[in-house]
Amino acid sequence: MESVHVIMQNAWNAYQEFSNLPISKRAAFMIAISKELLHQQDKLVKIAHAETNLSTHRLKGELKRTVYQLINYANAALTGDWLQVNIQEEQCKGGVKTPDIRKYNRAIGPVLVFGASNFPFAYSTVGGDTASAFSAGCSVIIKAHEAHIETSHAVAECVKSVMEEMEMPKHIFQHFIAKDRTEINELILHPQIKAIGFTGSFSGGKAIWELANSRKTPIPVFAEMSSINPVCILPKKLAEDVQNIASMLSKSMLQDAGQFCTNPGIFIIMDNDDAAVLLDTIGKAIENARPLKMLHSGIAHSFHENRRKILADERVMLISTTKYKYGALDVIPTIAAISAHDFLKDEKFSEEVFGSFTLVVKCKSMDEMIQICNLIPGQLTTTLFATDDEVMSNPELVQCMQEKCGRFILNDVPTGVRVSKAMHHGGPWPATTDSRFTSVGSDAIKRFVRPVCYQNWPNSLLPKDLQTKSY
Amino acid sequence: MESVHVIMQNAWNAYQEFSNLPISKRAAFMIAISKELLHQQDKLVKIAHAETNLSTHRLKGELKRTVYQLINYANAALTGDWLQVNIQEEQCKGGVKTPDIRKYNRAIGPVLVFGASNFPFAYSTVGGDTASAFSAGCSVIIKAHEAHIETSHAVAECVKSVMEEMEMPKHIFQHFIAKDRTEINELILHPQIKAIGFTGSFSGGKAIWELANSRKTPIPVFAEMSSINPVCILPKKLAEDVQNIASMLSKSMLQDAGQFCTNPGIFIIMDNDDAAVLLDTIGKAIENARPLKMLHSGIAHSFHENRRKILADERVMLISTTKYKYGALDVIPTIAAISAHDFLKDEKFSEEVFGSFTLVVKCKSMDEMIQICNLIPGQLTTTLFATDDEVMSNPELVQCMQEKCGRFILNDVPTGVRVSKAMHHGGPWPATTDSRFTSVGSDAIKRFVRPVCYQNWPNSLLPKDLQTKSY
Repeated sequence: MESVHVIMQNAWNAYQEFSNLPISKRAAFMIAISKELLHQQDKLVKIAHAETNLSTHRLKGELKRTVYQLINYANAALTGDWLQVNIQEEQCKGGVKTPDIRKYNRAIGPVLVFGASNFPFAYSTVGGDTASAFSAGCSVIIKAHEAHIETSHAVAECVKSVMEEMEMPKHIFQHFIAKDRTEINELILHPQIKAIGFTGSFSGGKAIWELANSRKTPIPVFAEMSSINPVCILPKKLAEDVQNIASMLSKSMLQDAGQFCTNPGIFIIMDNDDAAVLLDTIGKAIENARPLKMLHSGIAHSFHENRRKILADERVMLISTTKYKYGALDVIPTIAAISAHDFLKDEKFSEEVFGSFTLVVKCKSMDEMIQICNLIPGQLTTTLFATDDEVMSNPELVQCMQEKCGRFILNDVPTGVRVSKAMHHGGPWPATTDSRFTSVGSDAIKRFVRPVCYQNWPNSLLPKDLQTKSY
Repeated sequence: MESVHVIMQNAWNAYQEFSNLPISKRAAFMIAISKELLHQQDKLVKIAHAETNLSTHRLKGELKRTVYQLINYANAALTGDWLQVNIQEEQCKGGVKTPDIRKYNRAIGPVLVFGASNFPFAYSTVGGDTASAFSAGCSVIIKAHEAHIETSHAVAECVKSVMEEMEMPKHIFQHFIAKDRTEINELILHPQIKAIGFTGSFSGGKAIWELANSRKTPIPVFAEMSSINPVCILPKKLAEDVQNIASMLSKSMLQDAGQFCTNPGIFIIMDNDDAAVLLDTIGKAIENARPLKMLHSGIAHSFHENRRKILADERVMLISTTKYKYGALDVIPTIAAISAHDFLKDEKFSEEVFGSFTLVVKCKSMDEMIQICNLIPGQLTTTLFATDDEVMSNPELVQCMQEKCGRFILNDVPTGVRVSKAMHHGGPWPATTDSRFTSVGSDAIKRFVRPVCYQNWPNSLLPKDLQTKSY
């Protein structure tokens, strides 16, 4: 493999050329990649299935989503929305001339993308981060995730074959398999890396963010790190709809072994008879849930360890766990409960257990519920189950839940993140490093641009997208 | 003064109320402040003149600008552009229902604004940062700059009287005179501060940014820190227009003792006969420039010290300095020269000397010019003097200058920052902490918001700005 220095020199030159291409060329390139992925679908799914323990069904769905993302971001790029062009022509008021100024968003520079273990297609090699960086005109260095190197390699080969076929600038995409941590750090610290995309653990994301901030010229790091996605259930709504809520929540918890960043990890409820029915019903679903193999041994190990720690606490009461035998690599679907009073005493209860594990916090009053919401750190999502009346009569709770999240859901589940312009997949720290940007949906492009303003340039010398068109 | 805890509790409650007010009420409040400032104009200018050494003429102009900013941001708030509303209604495709999701930008929370010494009105108490935070619906704690406490106090009184008269939520604006550094740090570290605005030195801005990053929940810091605003002059253009360029640049250098963040601190030229004419002409203007009192003794002391350090270097040749006597509090208008070869050897030459001081870098080749531009750190502005032909035949230089700045100027001067939507007043580190945001022009509002997405909410329970209107 080339040295980091050579990789970065290539990435820099590629960025200069790529960012100055017409958007239509970049979009056509992305569409062509989407076609190649579809064409290679069976092969790619097979490789990923062997490597990740994810079901063929899930992987097929994820590949489709990846294809859709490429098309979606290509189309979003073509609309030009993200350019946010603003033109103020030369003016002369009261004898004072003010110059022509116009600005738009330009690619920020080469972007380093970390493959995500839980999305070998959709948030790895040519997933959402790479696609949105391409839209903006950034060159990409993708650091392959060690848990699916073969998949990453195979996808990278698809991208490279399209690059060659379409005669795209060389090195706009470079696949990087790191020898060791030092080599990764060298990339993060390289002055020509201008932004970083990451999806993974809090410790991983924070370490990258800190290293990037220690640079002589710090750069934006978009790390999606951790979220327990609290679900707050108000009593009237629960009384009206307990069976339906139980069914929605248990499905959401169990999907793909709970290995989603939006998996609901905490339920906050009033401790009453309806709650007992809810927990009983969900408990049965959990009991009957088969233990699925998790993505890789590291994730499984963390799950077992974190679950054990919570359950070992004498303040926590197990409600239900799978009745099936499970191995060391399997998720163990689990639901447990704790009183609000005890939950408030120890921060460890609001830390993420990645996988199908949910802690139910039982409250005695609305005050306690609000206290819990106040205590919980920043989240990707918060979910409220409530009747309209309950929403209106609890403004403090509603406001507090809104403060804590990037997406605020009413009477629905947090899993199922739609790739669309209206989506915001982000949230206050520690959910992400930057609550102002989304990593899903076409606004994700905005992570990889910065505004540049041009003053007093003749029309013909301006970048094409800033020129006044004469028809 | 109240404790930081009480101040923050008040700011938090105020933010909750203020951010939920109709935008029109916030806009009316800002317009009313602008009227009150105009009404108190004579008194305010008098106080500021006594405190800052700035001329009455300049202060009157700055107050006018402050009034204009309030009106401009109020109007920008009313357009709703900054909300970036996006609505995707419930859909049913092929039997699969996807929920209604819609997002917009909401106020980020209470904002801490540091008054700026070089703009006692326009970037202090109710200047650009405060006005853009108000537009977004944030409450503001303004930390008065110690160099103009009386001015800050008088302006704060204007704001407070309008708050009372209009029965605005209490504590949306709090004027804070810090006892000591510890108290300032306590504010920066307070969990309920959600963003910070700062204009000042690199060391000051960086210290705030580092402290904010050390929080359990880091927050965005918008610090405008330092910029030497390089001006690159190409030979053909210079030959065509030497007298005019000399006149533009010397005026730009000398305005208000050069105490602007966009003051041109470096000229990069080809060492030829036209350059000699240029430097001779500018040199005469500098010689005839009167030493003005600087803003305060700290700034004057730094200027004298930094100027001395550069001139003491044997590689630097003094071109010209004021012929008038100057005191310890005065700027000493100065222009000096260095060879590109020597400039490239020492980073100190690309550090800001805040005030009317310009270093001319003499190049022997276009290669050297490009090397200089590559070496120079991030800037608020870069300026190119060139004919159209020269722009077209030097793509590498043009691209490099564009990489380094937030505003790229052709055949004009960097001073004179227009308050408009097309303005970008920001730039890559160390010019600012975040190149993606502007501190001047209506897009400055975007610093103080974050997106929140609502899923599956009935229309009547959504925030007003997100509701589907039925006509």
